[in-house]
Amino acid sequence: MPWYQTTFRLPPFRRGFHLITHLVEANAPEIQKIKIGLAHIFLHHTSASLTLNENADPTVRVDFESHFNHLVPEKAPYYRHTSEGSDDMPAHLKASLLGNFLTIPITAGHLNLGTWQGIYLCEHRNHASGRMMTVTLQGE
Amino acid sequence: MPWYQTTFRLPPFRRGFHLITHLVEANAPEIQKIKIGLAHIFLHHTSASLTLNENADPTVRVDFESHFNHLVPEKAPYYRHTSEGSDDMPAHLKASLLGNFLTIPITAGHLNLGTWQGIYLCEHRNHASGRMMTVTLQGE
Amino acid sequence: MPWYQTTFRLPPFRRGFHLITHLVEANAPEIQKIKIGLAHIFLHHTSASLTLNENADPTVRVDFESHFNHLVPEKAPYYRHTSEGSDDMPAHLKASLLGNFLTIPITAGHLNLGTWQGIYLCEHRNHASGRMMTVTLQGE
Repeated sequence: MPWYQTTFRLPPFRRGFHLITHLVEANAPEIQKIKIGLAHIFLHHTSASLTLNENADPTVRVDFESHFNHLVPEKAPYYRHTSEGSDDMPAHLKASLLGNFLTIPITAGHLNLGTWQGIYLCEHRNHASGRMMTVTLQGE
Repeated sequence: MPWYQTTFRLPPFRRGFHLITHLVEANAPEIQKIKIGLAHIFLHHTSASLTLNENADPTVRVDFESHFNHLVPEKAPYYRHTSEGSDDMPAHLKASLLGNFLTIPITAGHLNLGTWQGIYLCEHRNHASGRMMTVTLQGE
Repeated sequence: MPWYQTTFRLPPFRRGFHLITHLVEANAPEIQKIKIGLAHIFLHHTSASLTLNENADPTVRVDFESHFNHLVPEKAPYYRHTSEGSDDMPAHLKASLLGNFLTIPITAGHLNLGTWQGIYLCEHRNHASGRMMTVTLQGE
């Protein structure tokens, strides 16, 4: 298969951790044509991030929001980049702790995720627009 | 070279950080056939993770366990996902802080790691079974 | 396009977070030949790391250094790996929190970064030499 690449805008999400596996699959149906390959999922932002985690119990995602707020507080006395709001610098730090890209194996036309794995969009800003994402697929 | 992909189960490891470079290489001997390429190593779990770090002094791995327990404590008062044991929610959070996949260059038939780099399996649960891993190789 | 891989040494950087997008591009001009593909950027070290974050305001990078020093303090009482200096064990931990590799989409001959995204070299040691990096490119 030749390379396949698509760029699209996710719908806006409120601050927190959100399951978006279905949105990635819906925007990259060419995954179904690949027997063995890799899907690379990239977010073009510095205040939101991507991670893989538990896809079943919504309280896991609530606890992610609580814990990352604890780990990266707003209004830390040492922040100097404060002009864009108290949620801005923490958002940058959370984005780098979690990372802004994923690479997932493709097997037999599907993202080869574990039973409990789902793709999270981690929205760290209070009032963000829909985030831009590029999915690049490759395989045979 | 065509794509190569293999899924296998690691042996169970106790909670902590463990060097598994040799296990990845033993399960993906096709690395030796690739002059230039990439190895993608993916863990199908949400309570264990992968990272690259120091491969020589075992106290580094002990300090990783200590520090991640400090950074992500058990029984934080704000956790709501508590039904699967006090080590469960911290395991999910540690897994996303460290990440569940690695991509490593292949050069002249070997994983092109730095002198001091080794692959760690980071086991965050107290009593886990062997973890499932998929290695995807590509190159020429 | 066949695979392209290059290994080079970055100039030494002082402890902190540094924009190096231009250095990656200068050392991998073959990016310009790729219409659709991926760039994999790998650091061969365990006490420095790579991340993508804000490329405009230098105070963001200052706040990264402050916050990671807060998150991973020197001289934590539980460290056992202390023989290589008080900045050594924190450097290993920071390196794994941030990660030592990036994969970035290539589109129309350019790294397809968001408007505000830049590549940071995160130097966690007080007195490091220039770090070794391998860039692997693939695409069509």
